[in-house]
Amino acid sequence: MIFRQLFDQTSSTYTYLLADQGQAVLIDPVIDNTDSYITLLKELDLTLVLAIDTHTHADHITALGKLRELTGCETRVGEQSKADCANGTYRDGDTLNVGGLTLTTLFTPGHTDDSYTFMLEHDGDTSVFTGDTLLIRGTGRTDFQNGNARDQYQSLFSNLLKLPAHTWVYPGHDYKGWMVSTIGEESAHNPRLQVKDVEEYVNLMNSLDLPNPKMMDVAVPANQACGEV
Amino acid sequence: MIFRQLFDQTSSTYTYLLADQGQAVLIDPVIDNTDSYITLLKELDLTLVLAIDTHTHADHITALGKLRELTGCETRVGEQSKADCANGTYRDGDTLNVGGLTLTTLFTPGHTDDSYTFMLEHDGDTSVFTGDTLLIRGTGRTDFQNGNARDQYQSLFSNLLKLPAHTWVYPGHDYKGWMVSTIGEESAHNPRLQVKDVEEYVNLMNSLDLPNPKMMDVAVPANQACGEV
Repeated sequence: MIFRQLFDQTSSTYTYLLADQGQAVLIDPVIDNTDSYITLLKELDLTLVLAIDTHTHADHITALGKLRELTGCETRVGEQSKADCANGTYRDGDTLNVGGLTLTTLFTPGHTDDSYTFMLEHDGDTSVFTGDTLLIRGTGRTDFQNGNARDQYQSLFSNLLKLPAHTWVYPGHDYKGWMVSTIGEESAHNPRLQVKDVEEYVNLMNSLDLPNPKMMDVAVPANQACGEV
Repeated sequence: MIFRQLFDQTSSTYTYLLADQGQAVLIDPVIDNTDSYITLLKELDLTLVLAIDTHTHADHITALGKLRELTGCETRVGEQSKADCANGTYRDGDTLNVGGLTLTTLFTPGHTDDSYTFMLEHDGDTSVFTGDTLLIRGTGRTDFQNGNARDQYQSLFSNLLKLPAHTWVYPGHDYKGWMVSTIGEESAHNPRLQVKDVEEYVNLMNSLDLPNPKMMDVAVPANQACGEV
């Protein structure tokens, strides 16, 4: 398996390249970096067969449309997404196959109402690509795009934190220079996961009072068109 | 083994945490991030036993002195370093042991006259922490601090590129959001490694005409004092 974590410095977004048997998938690609993805795919002798987003992003524009145009890859978004431009959708519990790899989709709403986590089991390791649901020592905000702190609590405590402690956590963003964590580490040390119940979590998330992302008014409609506006 | 790659956004520096059997080493720690290293070590239940620099940095201040002060860890720099503040030095071919891990030091001058690469063999994988000698799709500049393009050519072509193609390359910096590569990939696709001989490499490096790092006048003397000025 080929695995690369790629960082977009403008939006602090992580994009993941996974490949096997010459076939590749990109998770959460950023439109500004399309040329560098194409170069890397070529250098590693890979065919991009699939590009997927964990959710409709508000802080950057997706490369799904541009990658499909340039490579002919399939593009898929969650069935709850308002983007009707992708080739297809996925729903909770679906499996997405790339080479010999299988990504299982876990519906983890809360940051948005179309937020998913992708789970990969490979060579004895389990990894989750958590988008903005679970970040390293943080969680994604829940105050726009039909976000819901109550749903996110369930996604975290009834779904992701039930995974084995040694599960690798690969987030959709990081703002502090951290790249990977584990479910056990987040469970023990993520300050937002130390709440005693859902009410405390909802109060915590509702008290954050964050400014809107700078790109939100541009990015959300653009992403509903797979970046092709 | 515990492995973490940590990114300093101000200087685009990678710091590496390697640990085994509860003992940890930090490679190229940045002084501004000392508190976050200490927190992470505590959360992962690790004792920092060693902090090392690949070379005397000109773009950030090392955390070696501060980490030693706070944790009592050993600090070591290359024997060619002008920093006489460390506990000890290492030289070409030395082995540094942390838990059950062994780092082998490879003298790879060129970016500076005290530049080293650390090699780790673990669980069938070989990884090199190349500092500023070999970057992803680049190499470190050779125009100050007794840098020498001719020496760097030898360090690259007669040393690092002789390693097996599947050797993981973990650089000291990246400015484009890339985190890891391999010797095979760099050999084939790093534009600076496509030269036909040492003269072409020297000409290439001497034509770069780069401005000095913003922090150079502060960082170099500070680093010669292990960051404690």
